[in-house]
Amino acid sequence: MNEKRTDLAAEARDLWRESAGAGVLPDGVAADTETVGGYTVETLRVLDERGAEALGKPVGTYITVELGELLAKEEGAFARGAELLASRLRSLLGPDRNADVLVAGLGNSAITPDDLGPRSADYVLATRHLTESLPEHFGFLRRVSVVKTGVCGVTGVESAEMVRALVSALRPSAVIAVDALASRRLGRVCRTVQLSDAGIIPGSGVGNSRAELSLRTLSVPVIAVGVPTVVDAATLAADLAEMANIGKFDSEDFGSFGRSMIVTPREIDARIEDISKLIGYALNLALQDELSVADITQLLS
Amino acid sequence: MNEKRTDLAAEARDLWRESAGAGVLPDGVAADTETVGGYTVETLRVLDERGAEALGKPVGTYITVELGELLAKEEGAFARGAELLASRLRSLLGPDRNADVLVAGLGNSAITPDDLGPRSADYVLATRHLTESLPEHFGFLRRVSVVKTGVCGVTGVESAEMVRALVSALRPSAVIAVDALASRRLGRVCRTVQLSDAGIIPGSGVGNSRAELSLRTLSVPVIAVGVPTVVDAATLAADLAEMANIGKFDSEDFGSFGRSMIVTPREIDARIEDISKLIGYALNLALQDELSVADITQLLS
Amino acid sequence: MNEKRTDLAAEARDLWRESAGAGVLPDGVAADTETVGGYTVETLRVLDERGAEALGKPVGTYITVELGELLAKEEGAFARGAELLASRLRSLLGPDRNADVLVAGLGNSAITPDDLGPRSADYVLATRHLTESLPEHFGFLRRVSVVKTGVCGVTGVESAEMVRALVSALRPSAVIAVDALASRRLGRVCRTVQLSDAGIIPGSGVGNSRAELSLRTLSVPVIAVGVPTVVDAATLAADLAEMANIGKFDSEDFGSFGRSMIVTPREIDARIEDISKLIGYALNLALQDELSVADITQLLS
Amino acid sequence: MNEKRTDLAAEARDLWRESAGAGVLPDGVAADTETVGGYTVETLRVLDERGAEALGKPVGTYITVELGELLAKEEGAFARGAELLASRLRSLLGPDRNADVLVAGLGNSAITPDDLGPRSADYVLATRHLTESLPEHFGFLRRVSVVKTGVCGVTGVESAEMVRALVSALRPSAVIAVDALASRRLGRVCRTVQLSDAGIIPGSGVGNSRAELSLRTLSVPVIAVGVPTVVDAATLAADLAEMANIGKFDSEDFGSFGRSMIVTPREIDARIEDISKLIGYALNLALQDELSVADITQLLS
Repeated sequence: MNEKRTDLAAEARDLWRESAGAGVLPDGVAADTETVGGYTVETLRVLDERGAEALGKPVGTYITVELGELLAKEEGAFARGAELLASRLRSLLGPDRNADVLVAGLGNSAITPDDLGPRSADYVLATRHLTESLPEHFGFLRRVSVVKTGVCGVTGVESAEMVRALVSALRPSAVIAVDALASRRLGRVCRTVQLSDAGIIPGSGVGNSRAELSLRTLSVPVIAVGVPTVVDAATLAADLAEMANIGKFDSEDFGSFGRSMIVTPREIDARIEDISKLIGYALNLALQDELSVADITQLLS
Repeated sequence: MNEKRTDLAAEARDLWRESAGAGVLPDGVAADTETVGGYTVETLRVLDERGAEALGKPVGTYITVELGELLAKEEGAFARGAELLASRLRSLLGPDRNADVLVAGLGNSAITPDDLGPRSADYVLATRHLTESLPEHFGFLRRVSVVKTGVCGVTGVESAEMVRALVSALRPSAVIAVDALASRRLGRVCRTVQLSDAGIIPGSGVGNSRAELSLRTLSVPVIAVGVPTVVDAATLAADLAEMANIGKFDSEDFGSFGRSMIVTPREIDARIEDISKLIGYALNLALQDELSVADITQLLS
Repeated sequence: MNEKRTDLAAEARDLWRESAGAGVLPDGVAADTETVGGYTVETLRVLDERGAEALGKPVGTYITVELGELLAKEEGAFARGAELLASRLRSLLGPDRNADVLVAGLGNSAITPDDLGPRSADYVLATRHLTESLPEHFGFLRRVSVVKTGVCGVTGVESAEMVRALVSALRPSAVIAVDALASRRLGRVCRTVQLSDAGIIPGSGVGNSRAELSLRTLSVPVIAVGVPTVVDAATLAADLAEMANIGKFDSEDFGSFGRSMIVTPREIDARIEDISKLIGYALNLALQDELSVADITQLLS
Repeated sequence: MNEKRTDLAAEARDLWRESAGAGVLPDGVAADTETVGGYTVETLRVLDERGAEALGKPVGTYITVELGELLAKEEGAFARGAELLASRLRSLLGPDRNADVLVAGLGNSAITPDDLGPRSADYVLATRHLTESLPEHFGFLRRVSVVKTGVCGVTGVESAEMVRALVSALRPSAVIAVDALASRRLGRVCRTVQLSDAGIIPGSGVGNSRAELSLRTLSVPVIAVGVPTVVDAATLAADLAEMANIGKFDSEDFGSFGRSMIVTPREIDARIEDISKLIGYALNLALQDELSVADITQLLS
């Protein structure tokens, strides 16, 4: 198993290739790349324990969408990106279009790069109460509930406990968890979305299995939606050192020093806002077949 | 039973007296008034169903603290007010100083006068995770978890359902619910705190019993902390009309018109902030015997 | 001159009529009402000192647009309302489409109903720096600068002084000042926009002439854009008392008590946001002939 | 002159020493280091054009205070740090304790690390209006006005123009400008404060002399207060590469790529809040001889 950590399966694959060689894949892993409307979509399938061991990622499907120029605000780019993400979310959610869903925005809204989950949740239409109280008007909507879990330091409750409590009470047929990730490459920050059915560990994997949100721990499917919003300063150092052909650079040298510092885009506040809105719209499109981008804008206002 | 509604038991008593006469009390109701450090504290006990019927309030104890001049920012007024509220909260919480407590901030943080509950929750120290992960350092603290329930329109989940889910999962021995109330008198707005062990109906009692938070619905004691932050415009009209000796004024004439409008202090944003901070500190003092006002300031920063 | 105060010329006219009789107008005042796309637009012209004396308003033109159902979010209502306001603003701004303009958002952003001016300013496109630094790309835009004056208690500087300083430095050919107003009628709150070329006294006219923003004090034309966002509690009492046929009600009875309390819509936070956005768009449409609603949305994002 | 840029004079001196050797100073530069209450205070004096040329900094005094452990929240650390900064600010402000001062918070409040100036301004007591309107009560206070200049993209007006306009109108005898800086070293981020009488170029010195705020451009003394809140990602790369003994690393290789990314502490939101509060209190202590830390807390609440 690889010692270097990353939240992105595609980066775990790249790290594996550093020793195994470019272009090859571990046993138990399948990959597929396509281009859709100008965006690159890569689907990585961790098929069995061999693949999970090699990449350090649980068995499941990981879809990486490179939005790159999306945020260039070109005409229609927002709608195309949201539709693309929605189509992939639908494939992970499965065929039952009426199943209840709980959307959980994970992360600390008081830390800008960690506000992705809560801010995305702001853009998701909660419909569960409407379908119950006014079925004649809203019966056509899928029942969606939306929660921001907050952070342990503020609530005294782990995000995973909070979600588990709501799953027990509301009995959704699936959970969608949105969280900020860490990446190894600057170029992916606020530009890449990873969708997965393999669950998620809030707070970027401290290795605390109690905290895991997955089919195994919640007994319902968990779709994870993540966006890298930072790079560790120590990871960046290695990254830049390689680009400059300085040779290998051991990020462990920096220990807690480098790890207490992060690298973000200068305009991280605006970037988090933009990508959170995109994710919120994509979730609405994926969950509510009847709604268009314009409908969502109307309903959110 | 009285037709005029109020969230304050003391006002329900006043309304009852309008027909019954000043100074008397219904059967099944006991009252007691004291002055503590310049503040008036009134304890009203609804003892049985006769009292509940007469006042339109469930059986239980209702403590009304008139802070009045507290907010005048006189030296030490904040600490004295917080200590006074804490002492009364302790009497409602009962003798077990180690029991777990769940604090729930109810209300809509996007509507200023309804932000009292969420804002108060911001000032409550969540300790449950600390006592679990670092018992050697924090074992002396009572285990407290803190949740903001949000509102149904945003989450799809009723506040009461959210609290019930967390009670099932966390098994606290009591719930403290903080919520904004409506008053009938301008003079009480942002100046009066009502503490009660009779539970609470979030959103100012729409009469929906599913939504009730009480010992009956949650199977653990529920301490309600409420502050009137608004007066209905229609209620004000009657209030002012009486002051001007115009005679009786039927607030029902205004129907939904008057009820869609509220009366608040001009500086409601600052007043909500001030009183929420006071309530948060009072909760911390009541729950954590070891902490002083200065300790809390340090821990919150 | 009338003793009852109001920030709206149309209400001053109504007050005058209370003694003079319905349907008549003072000498020196002309009025004109039209309906445009479902909205009522009333133009009141105070022609000379007789009119100014009668209404307690300076000589000038006052255009009152009743948006009423606009905020009902019916299809296209936002764009129609913005275009209507823009057309009237253009008529007040005069024919020179290239003249520099300074937009001033007046009011205290920490007090929700007083945040109208600052929040509207957030929606106005500042272009002055672009036309200077990149004339080849942005030369087609009118030069607009945007300032939020803040409040005296925070800055130590009166709003009028702040605007005067910027007028001296930037030499705009007109000032547009946006401010929250007080109304006498609940039905106008957050639903009526008053446009005027007669200047404005920030903070709802304390009668301090030093504070006036007008052609007289700034030597450039001042277009005032105002929206009533509150009613004095005391004024409401009189209003409601009349509706209930209780007879005359003297709001002076309540003195500082009633005046420290305000009446607002329950959802004032959302209403201020909606109407501020409308005003911001209307200003952009009025100032920049080349831009559509869609262009503005794109440029603001 | 050195090609590598930094906003800190102490770093410019370090860069100069890279070629000249440790421990020496350029001609025309004097340095002095002392330790006060556990904090290191370094005073660098650029005495003439030789020094200015060598360090790339204008003639003037630069005081660098390393707060380091201040933010560790040890008992009394906040007050000691604020007093220390205040004493050095007083030395730069000169002996006239009654002179009017304009405090300008520079920077973009929508970008967290650039919010230092505006957020510090929130903590500065504006007194000018009080001393004018209520001299009998507030005559003992120095007259202070406070402005947040905003950013050009939002206002259409350069920060320097805005300050110049207010200097012309208000005629203060000095300007204090607070702005976020860029540092070359992670260890200084949110821990070092630079005070200077040599003026400031808002936005970290784009070399645009029109934008300079200084005695030369404003005709009144300008005291600059700056705190490094970010490190360029490219600068960090070089920094880390040297620490790892990889050898020289040319940050220019990364061009606009590295410069669009910044390195900040993970908890930058909280750190900006803490250091802004410290600076605000230090300014109040320096400007108002009569006020203590406790007085300021009272007056700000």
